[in-house]
Order: sequence, then structure tokens, then C-alpha cells
Amino acid sequence: MVGSVILVGKKPVMNYVLATLTQLNEGTNEVTVKARGKAIGRAIDVVEIVRNRFIKGLKIKDIRIDTEELESQDGKKINVSTIEIRISK
Amino acid sequence: MVGSVILVGKKPVMNYVLATLTQLNEGTNEVTVKARGKAIGRAIDVVEIVRNRFIKGLKIKDIRIDTEELESQDGKKINVSTIEIRISK
Repeated sequence: MVGSVILVGKKPVMNYVLATLTQLNEGTNEVTVKARGKAIGRAIDVVEIVRNRFIKGLKIKDIRIDTEELESQDGKKINVSTIEIRISK
Repeated sequence: MVGSVILVGKKPVMNYVLATLTQLNEGTNEVTVKARGKAIGRAIDVVEIVRNRFIKGLKIKDIRIDTEELESQDGKKINVSTIEIRISK
């Protein structure tokens, strides 16, 4: 994977927006914003906020969805959806 | 937009899986699964369940993200992220 990865979790959305902007402004021309499960909506919020408020010409190069198999605390296998959004300036 | 649209909301995920399968099996070769805000993760779950459990060769033709401006109950404008996933058999 080219460029750096921002893994979006449960923190406030602006934390990830700042991390993404920092990466995009530090020479890494390409960033992949990833999330799974309930954080997926937040990952899209991150990209949309970067695109609408900070970097007008932001390019969305690719969006991929997939499924990961996780093991829950009681040992059951559960499927969780994932998203990867590849962006560049 | 070609084909029919499944708008994913707050109902159980399998409702939307069934609706998507019905559309794909009724001659509509292409379906667009749409959602906004908190339902975005569920829309991806719908596509992943259809792809992994029901239609193995399902093609994900395009994934788009965007922002819609909504008016909240007290008249404030709020931005909400949206997703559109175009799939075909």
C-alpha cells in the first residue's frame, strides 16, 4: 500500500481529520483512511470534512469494502465490514 | 441512475439483504445500495452479506461518498455523509 494509513476508531472525528491533514501536508501525497464496523461512518465523515473544508481538490482514488473475521470475547467468530478510502492531494 | 435503488435505514440488515436479492433476481441486473449517516455501516454489511453468502460473483461496480445538507428539527443545517454502492450480478 502506497502512503500512510489512518485507522479511524472511536475518537472524535476531528482527531482523524487532523491526522489526515498532517499526513497529506508532510509529503505523503496519498493517505488511506480505514475503518471497520461502527467506525465506518466516521471514516467517511473524515474524508468528507477534509474534502469540503480543508483541501478542495482532494481526489478520492479508490474506495474498497471488505469483510474481516474477528473472534469475540467468548470465542465466537464474527464478521465485520471494513472500508478503505484512498485519497490524495 | 440505472437499475433500482435500495435505501438502507434503521431496519434489521436482513430486510435490506432480502430486498437487494429480490431486485437482483427480478431482472434488474444492477442495484444501488444507498445510505446516510449512521446507516452507512449497515449498507456495507448488506452488500458484504449478499456477496459472501448469496451471490458469489457479485460485482461492486462503483462506490461513491458524498455530503448532504439536512435541516435539523430546530432549523439548524447539519451535514451528513452518504454512500452509494452500485452492484451487479
